[in-house]
Amino acid sequence: MKEQVIAGIDVGGTTIKIAFITEDGEIKKKWEITTNQKENGKYIMVETAASIKQQLESSWELTAAGVGAPGFIDVEQGFIYEAVNLGWKEYELKKELEALLQIPVVADNDANLAAGGEKWKGAGEGARNLLAVTLGTGVGGGIIAGGQIIHGESGMAGEIGHITALKEGGAPCNCGKRGCLETVASATGIARLGLEAVQREKKGYLMEKMQSVGTVTAKDVLDGAKLGDPVAEKVVDEAMEHLGLALANLCNSLNPETIVLGGGVSKAGDFIIDKIKASFQKYAIPKIGRETKINLAALGNDAGVIGAAWLAKEFFVKEEG
Amino acid sequence: MKEQVIAGIDVGGTTIKIAFITEDGEIKKKWEITTNQKENGKYIMVETAASIKQQLESSWELTAAGVGAPGFIDVEQGFIYEAVNLGWKEYELKKELEALLQIPVVADNDANLAAGGEKWKGAGEGARNLLAVTLGTGVGGGIIAGGQIIHGESGMAGEIGHITALKEGGAPCNCGKRGCLETVASATGIARLGLEAVQREKKGYLMEKMQSVGTVTAKDVLDGAKLGDPVAEKVVDEAMEHLGLALANLCNSLNPETIVLGGGVSKAGDFIIDKIKASFQKYAIPKIGRETKINLAALGNDAGVIGAAWLAKEFFVKEEG
Repeated sequence: MKEQVIAGIDVGGTTIKIAFITEDGEIKKKWEITTNQKENGKYIMVETAASIKQQLESSWELTAAGVGAPGFIDVEQGFIYEAVNLGWKEYELKKELEALLQIPVVADNDANLAAGGEKWKGAGEGARNLLAVTLGTGVGGGIIAGGQIIHGESGMAGEIGHITALKEGGAPCNCGKRGCLETVASATGIARLGLEAVQREKKGYLMEKMQSVGTVTAKDVLDGAKLGDPVAEKVVDEAMEHLGLALANLCNSLNPETIVLGGGVSKAGDFIIDKIKASFQKYAIPKIGRETKINLAALGNDAGVIGAAWLAKEFFVKEEG
Repeated sequence: MKEQVIAGIDVGGTTIKIAFITEDGEIKKKWEITTNQKENGKYIMVETAASIKQQLESSWELTAAGVGAPGFIDVEQGFIYEAVNLGWKEYELKKELEALLQIPVVADNDANLAAGGEKWKGAGEGARNLLAVTLGTGVGGGIIAGGQIIHGESGMAGEIGHITALKEGGAPCNCGKRGCLETVASATGIARLGLEAVQREKKGYLMEKMQSVGTVTAKDVLDGAKLGDPVAEKVVDEAMEHLGLALANLCNSLNPETIVLGGGVSKAGDFIIDKIKASFQKYAIPKIGRETKINLAALGNDAGVIGAAWLAKEFFVKEEG
């Protein structure tokens, strides 16, 4: 009998990550192809399906596929309202891939699937209630409650980057508001706060970076803070104070078992986890402050494909027994 | 054939509200009995079951019961960790009532069931994603996402009253923190802010109340604000600004279709809804600010029993066809 595998697909603006994954969550094979953005992304699924067929070994049976994409998605229909980075607009993702592969397909937002991956096999393994937070260029989120991904009325649930961190005097955000969490706790936000700090203070680790390289990145700020530079550490403290408050307020309402932190900023590791925890515990209901785990993401770039396979398993694979 | 009915039960510290409700949500009969708090509430379910048997008409068949109680509940087990107002602690609510009535029983937190009631037959009718907010002595909440009540890891989901509204200088809260939403937007909070304002300003509608009655209530503040008293209106504006921000931050993460506002403070009606909307739209992602409905609760005191029956129907009644 052939071994049954699920295809997990994570479509990004530059590459498409693909993996064959067993129903137990074991990655049998994983690879990437380049995202073909030509003609509003119309070749993306064609090339993905061709690559999947080519990579499938004869001893495997492909039973289903899950696919994650950056954008707003109607999960029931597998319909993309818009995925700006890919050129897709009002695109029948699920139907197209089902026609190409002749297997059932489920599609969801990539941040939601990263949350699903961490829940299934990562830093929130087995959690029925989980909040996944990505601190990258922006601040993204995925919410799992009662074992299910929360989508909200128009697929916008999890947009925690647009929680208002600064009621007044905040920096403008891409969403049209000011003072969003994203403007202070993303890599972009930390770099901006670092630049402002060095222009104000004109000294220390960040000033050296400024003089040698001409700018300051989020990594510089985090590195400087770790080295004990007071200007850099004050910036990190400010960013993590805002993040801890926003997470506490969310957890007072959602009561997850675990918060999983991923994305570039999370590479600073326990150094920022400790700062986030201090702020979180200050603002959370005491029981929630004590009991909520805050973990670093464990799956890295594999979270998306594993989460996509998890969702396909949940949708299509019958439990035995 | 007998008409099938579900018992909806809403256990409060003073009275127990009970209703027979059809599977379509029609209340056939409703009544109340007094809550017997003797011996840690051990007679509450005995007396509830006896009353149900007595009120059941011979033309009805009782198929299931739903019961709401104030406290933290393990819904799968129907187990009450603690319901302080009733004297219950580690109490097998579901098992006890099932033994008494010989029908399947489901139990949940009363605020969650009020949300369920408004979702089924009230101001959020049919919504699959709904946030119910009760502005009473405290600020309570119930979250429905993807058609399901969100419980969180230890039954604490929906505790939106403990979102931190004031990072600094806030009043102490029962939860042990300071500056919780509940300290400014509940009836208690509005009364406190009103008292502080009149002691500071010593004039206007609230000063008259203070001089004639010796204190100021939340209703006085809301009445004064409606009459155009500037001291009172400033208090209401402050409270609703905090509430609108907290709701916007939650909705940026949960993307509900509808927010339903109930409890004593909500009796001020459109006057406060308009203020909440103004703050909400300032802080929500623009699309969420435009699309999220903010409605007054429609079911009043019936929300709990209707929500209890809804949950029992969801758990136990098979859909036809």
